[in-house]
Amino acid sequence: MFHAPIRLGMVGGGAGAFIGAVHRIAARLDGAFDLVAGALSSTPEKARASAEALGIPRAYDDFATMARAEAERADGIEAVAIVTPNHMHAAPAIAFLERGIHVICDKPLTATMEEATALADVARRSNALFVLTHNYTGYPMVRQARAMVASGALGRIRLVQVEYAQEWLTGPAEAQGSKQAEWRTDPARSGAGGALGDIGTHAYNLACFVSGLTPEALAADLSSFGPGRALDDNAHVLLRFAGGARGMLWASQVAPGSENGLRLRLYGETGGLDWAQEDPNRLWFTRFGEPKQLLTRNGAGVGSEATRVSRIPPGHPEGYLEAFANIYAEAARAIRAHQAGEGPPPGTTYPTLEDGLAGMRFIAACVESSRRDAAWVTP
Amino acid sequence: MFHAPIRLGMVGGGAGAFIGAVHRIAARLDGAFDLVAGALSSTPEKARASAEALGIPRAYDDFATMARAEAERADGIEAVAIVTPNHMHAAPAIAFLERGIHVICDKPLTATMEEATALADVARRSNALFVLTHNYTGYPMVRQARAMVASGALGRIRLVQVEYAQEWLTGPAEAQGSKQAEWRTDPARSGAGGALGDIGTHAYNLACFVSGLTPEALAADLSSFGPGRALDDNAHVLLRFAGGARGMLWASQVAPGSENGLRLRLYGETGGLDWAQEDPNRLWFTRFGEPKQLLTRNGAGVGSEATRVSRIPPGHPEGYLEAFANIYAEAARAIRAHQAGEGPPPGTTYPTLEDGLAGMRFIAACVESSRRDAAWVTP
Amino acid sequence: MFHAPIRLGMVGGGAGAFIGAVHRIAARLDGAFDLVAGALSSTPEKARASAEALGIPRAYDDFATMARAEAERADGIEAVAIVTPNHMHAAPAIAFLERGIHVICDKPLTATMEEATALADVARRSNALFVLTHNYTGYPMVRQARAMVASGALGRIRLVQVEYAQEWLTGPAEAQGSKQAEWRTDPARSGAGGALGDIGTHAYNLACFVSGLTPEALAADLSSFGPGRALDDNAHVLLRFAGGARGMLWASQVAPGSENGLRLRLYGETGGLDWAQEDPNRLWFTRFGEPKQLLTRNGAGVGSEATRVSRIPPGHPEGYLEAFANIYAEAARAIRAHQAGEGPPPGTTYPTLEDGLAGMRFIAACVESSRRDAAWVTP
Amino acid sequence: MFHAPIRLGMVGGGAGAFIGAVHRIAARLDGAFDLVAGALSSTPEKARASAEALGIPRAYDDFATMARAEAERADGIEAVAIVTPNHMHAAPAIAFLERGIHVICDKPLTATMEEATALADVARRSNALFVLTHNYTGYPMVRQARAMVASGALGRIRLVQVEYAQEWLTGPAEAQGSKQAEWRTDPARSGAGGALGDIGTHAYNLACFVSGLTPEALAADLSSFGPGRALDDNAHVLLRFAGGARGMLWASQVAPGSENGLRLRLYGETGGLDWAQEDPNRLWFTRFGEPKQLLTRNGAGVGSEATRVSRIPPGHPEGYLEAFANIYAEAARAIRAHQAGEGPPPGTTYPTLEDGLAGMRFIAACVESSRRDAAWVTP
Repeated sequence: MFHAPIRLGMVGGGAGAFIGAVHRIAARLDGAFDLVAGALSSTPEKARASAEALGIPRAYDDFATMARAEAERADGIEAVAIVTPNHMHAAPAIAFLERGIHVICDKPLTATMEEATALADVARRSNALFVLTHNYTGYPMVRQARAMVASGALGRIRLVQVEYAQEWLTGPAEAQGSKQAEWRTDPARSGAGGALGDIGTHAYNLACFVSGLTPEALAADLSSFGPGRALDDNAHVLLRFAGGARGMLWASQVAPGSENGLRLRLYGETGGLDWAQEDPNRLWFTRFGEPKQLLTRNGAGVGSEATRVSRIPPGHPEGYLEAFANIYAEAARAIRAHQAGEGPPPGTTYPTLEDGLAGMRFIAACVESSRRDAAWVTP
Repeated sequence: MFHAPIRLGMVGGGAGAFIGAVHRIAARLDGAFDLVAGALSSTPEKARASAEALGIPRAYDDFATMARAEAERADGIEAVAIVTPNHMHAAPAIAFLERGIHVICDKPLTATMEEATALADVARRSNALFVLTHNYTGYPMVRQARAMVASGALGRIRLVQVEYAQEWLTGPAEAQGSKQAEWRTDPARSGAGGALGDIGTHAYNLACFVSGLTPEALAADLSSFGPGRALDDNAHVLLRFAGGARGMLWASQVAPGSENGLRLRLYGETGGLDWAQEDPNRLWFTRFGEPKQLLTRNGAGVGSEATRVSRIPPGHPEGYLEAFANIYAEAARAIRAHQAGEGPPPGTTYPTLEDGLAGMRFIAACVESSRRDAAWVTP
Repeated sequence: MFHAPIRLGMVGGGAGAFIGAVHRIAARLDGAFDLVAGALSSTPEKARASAEALGIPRAYDDFATMARAEAERADGIEAVAIVTPNHMHAAPAIAFLERGIHVICDKPLTATMEEATALADVARRSNALFVLTHNYTGYPMVRQARAMVASGALGRIRLVQVEYAQEWLTGPAEAQGSKQAEWRTDPARSGAGGALGDIGTHAYNLACFVSGLTPEALAADLSSFGPGRALDDNAHVLLRFAGGARGMLWASQVAPGSENGLRLRLYGETGGLDWAQEDPNRLWFTRFGEPKQLLTRNGAGVGSEATRVSRIPPGHPEGYLEAFANIYAEAARAIRAHQAGEGPPPGTTYPTLEDGLAGMRFIAACVESSRRDAAWVTP
Repeated sequence: MFHAPIRLGMVGGGAGAFIGAVHRIAARLDGAFDLVAGALSSTPEKARASAEALGIPRAYDDFATMARAEAERADGIEAVAIVTPNHMHAAPAIAFLERGIHVICDKPLTATMEEATALADVARRSNALFVLTHNYTGYPMVRQARAMVASGALGRIRLVQVEYAQEWLTGPAEAQGSKQAEWRTDPARSGAGGALGDIGTHAYNLACFVSGLTPEALAADLSSFGPGRALDDNAHVLLRFAGGARGMLWASQVAPGSENGLRLRLYGETGGLDWAQEDPNRLWFTRFGEPKQLLTRNGAGVGSEATRVSRIPPGHPEGYLEAFANIYAEAARAIRAHQAGEGPPPGTTYPTLEDGLAGMRFIAACVESSRRDAAWVTP
């Protein structure tokens, strides 16, 4: 059945921002959202110019005005995407949640634990939904991996090996005019984690999402290789999970030759899985003692958890934007059900406030552990 | 600068069709089209039900009514996507072109050479544009390959090795309820080519697009391995190009283990290229006597021909839908320029009527060659 | 049980020859042969110097002297390896076979069909064994592929896609001091086939060996891209097999980026196989409708045909020399059994005179077909 | 110039042993050694039977007898290979070194640090050479990587990521009749390290060999997932190197789907390298800001450090046995030079006593660190 697109607003994402454009495509891809309002920049002029350039009908100078005005309109936005730097997540999220407008927020949750706690208080009291775009959980083969683990295909999990390697901060990009590099290496805007917050939280979230395991302790060794860099650009982390599984997490932005190398390997008592984000339509599965299998998106042997978020046949690659769009599609399903006074349809799966809080605890624990020379800390 | 979306209609693509859904996503992905009218099925009831399910405001019982009605509206469609089986390309394309409505048509051009000629006559006289969705030419790394060949990076081309292998017709899918298999193996709906028309034309177009070469002769050995199958499900073709290059083309739908295995390799006097559709963000380049290089979409060493049709950073995979959307984006650029009385912006590149006619000649030449025991035939 | 090494002689393979060194390692690797005599060069001085440098006890000026002398010694050689250019295969092979000395001969069988016939006459009358080093059939996973086809794992074979691409003759190597290039592009020493004889025969032999099929007709389009090159450096061949299977064979030495790219893909009614020489420890197998499997040498699901010619555990790569040594090991088994008056042990498998003759017919048929503009010719 | 093969003895490596057979092939492959004496088993009958089955002329009941007897013969062995379980390395090594017989010993050096110290004392006083078979350093592309790092191609190294994953101890193999599993999980025969000693030392040695860096501290989290297993079967290790580089080492024998997954990645200020043992003929190199390059053994751009230990052209895979044979070939060069009263020829490179001691310190440090809950320990 056809549903009218959900009216969406956006905070942040003006000209030149990377992730704002991604959110816009993701929102549009399945036709489930209509972007009708925006406060796209911290500068009113830029905010208006960006909205005009993007054809967004209602441009606001700032998120507070937007929240007030939209809440009062009969045709006001039903949801808002927050795509600002980390330190500008909490305030707008709170403003919209308090007015009952659903929030789709980029990760990490906030820049500081204080902001996170404040946001969590509001979000838990609010009737509106909170969706965090840990977008990698939107990949169909990640869903497949999670379903296989849950079904016992690997037996009890023993090992969780996750890594997320990039190269873009190998040189002093923040001193060479990269806006992305500037705010991501600035504690005032990013918070306590550098690579940790930017990509480490993705790796951590992915590992927990697929394995279904809860970390009990971690030991982290953080480095800042870039000259004068205040935040970590490399994180080496040991993990211990409830139930006895162990793991390693590596997040780096100084690994030349690595573009967006997020990879997860899980090993259990009877089998293993291997998935890499740069080849996302494939999932390797080994039942111990049998030949390795290559599962492909929408291919033979793949279950409904993956096919329900897949659009086209095997061999026709889906990518990053489709996975991101799956988070938006799940959000749309949940929002529509919520508007109908119902729970989300069976299978609806998206990262939540709790995932965001777990990410914040992960950052804090890594920073503390590293400060204490890689002592074990509970995240 | 923001442009209002182009008003788009669609012929074909009702519930259950694969390629119609692809066109809709492709049209929507960059926000350049707004689907406002449709004649989505040959059955009026299904046509209306499909339009309703998709939220398309103006549903028509048939394309002829739609062409007439839309042409009369002030806010009528500016372009139409034709996504019917092959034998239903020519008639609607003609109907819309004659009313000055731009046509975006799926491949192959038509089912018969007669239809192709008729369509070509109209298209050449029409003021409207005709775009053929040889979507694989929309991949950024295919554009990169083409630019490299054109710049002489490979030297004079000697060899063109192209293949497109699938597995889905290995069994008698047409007798097992697959609608796709039914019409694609039916000469009345597909025309003279089976695998040839469905995927062989893609391979042929890709090879010509990237190499810039014109085939002078081909020798084809067609097979129908599926029991009782009237059309080819496997094509083995030798190619000779103007200027002396030679090539091989293999198209198959009976190759178990092959999902959508389109691959092009080009070899020249000083270098070679290798690109595969299932790993589309990468392009292998070898300068003879130097180490092989792996070029990645938006990565180091990639030129503007590729980056202008790329949306996100390297390592964040773009896929089939993004490439398809690039054809729509190019069409949008051309249509807007056309509406402004201008030529398309520099670099605008999309498959045209001429590509469609070349594909038809390719099918006809292969069929004739195979009938004559793989004699050389000019396509 | 321990067997004393077989006393081996060598004809050709003096300093600087590639394939002679390979044969020596292959003969030595399993300790089954002891190289005790040689006529390593056509120049007596070089022959003696090479033998001395290699520590071969008995050096001869020419193969004829060697054949005579060794046949008279009580401790004379039991087998001889012939590793000369093609035009020097027949004469020494005949000389040794006539004296009852087993021959292990490099491919192709000879330079001309006349030589081949003469050699065949002698070989068939001789009590001695004739082994042809189509070494790629020595790879364990090639044996596995053959066993799977024979067992019906793919169903009836429909398609045979084989290719062997190299790059080393992209430039005019024969004019730049490469001895290898000089004789391999010289009809007087190589015979009628260039790339055809050097690598095309390998591809052809591999395809027939694994598929178990007999070609009934072929159509070939040969090219000589190198300026002034008398022999083909690229071969495009269509194949028709008894029983209805079809195939393509591509052999090229002008494909920049290709090192030693021998690859075989077979597709049957129920499954497919894919093997590439540059990644020889792996074999891809797809049962239509199931996930693709990765079989590995000595790994799970691999049968005795492969494990009997494998030395070390999976994940410890065996390579070209081990596969070559397997041909020698098979020859050793056959020779010992022959000396004991028995047939070879079960499973013993090596390329024979018949394979060599088939290769010669393949070359001749391709040359004739190409001369007749790719007409169908029976090989 | 031809050198007569070096007379070699062997301790251990009787019927059924994996690594003994590998050493024999490695010793034989280049014709540099002649295996003439052996004490192949701890049981005299088995020792003699194994020697007979292998055609080794002089069989001894035990290594002590062999050392005495061979030292007295004019044609006694010049070198001995020690391929026993770890706890049987020190005693024979000492016995032969004290008699001036060169020792080629499998890794790890010994089972205990006490044995290591005793052996080191003797080795340092002995005139004979001591070679440790950290065989992975014999791969040509590992040599290439080391040479590139040394030449500054990566700039100052920041990160060392090394892993060695296997699957064979996923189940209780030691309780299922695997002799390999029995002794490798037995502290009395293996020493303090399980996976650590068996494969962790290889990973550690490889990382140090290629990076040229010295670890200053490590923090290890060891696990024994196999029920009742006394030694670690998984090791997670953080590394800190002199000069500020950081690293991670993962060694596991309980990772289903991993055959022999040794992989090393190095990242410096200006470039990165990636090498994997299961694809050993290739080395990935990225100069930051340029396209990734694929270097191949004996291919373009590869230096003499790699080509001097390579036998055949690119595209003809060399594997594990060839790399192992390179250690033997280096040993042979060193032994011949030593016998001539000279130093080893330029470039001769093999793992030494110092590498063995470093490996022992690595094991001890990991065990201590893990006991102290992953505290930092100096290896």
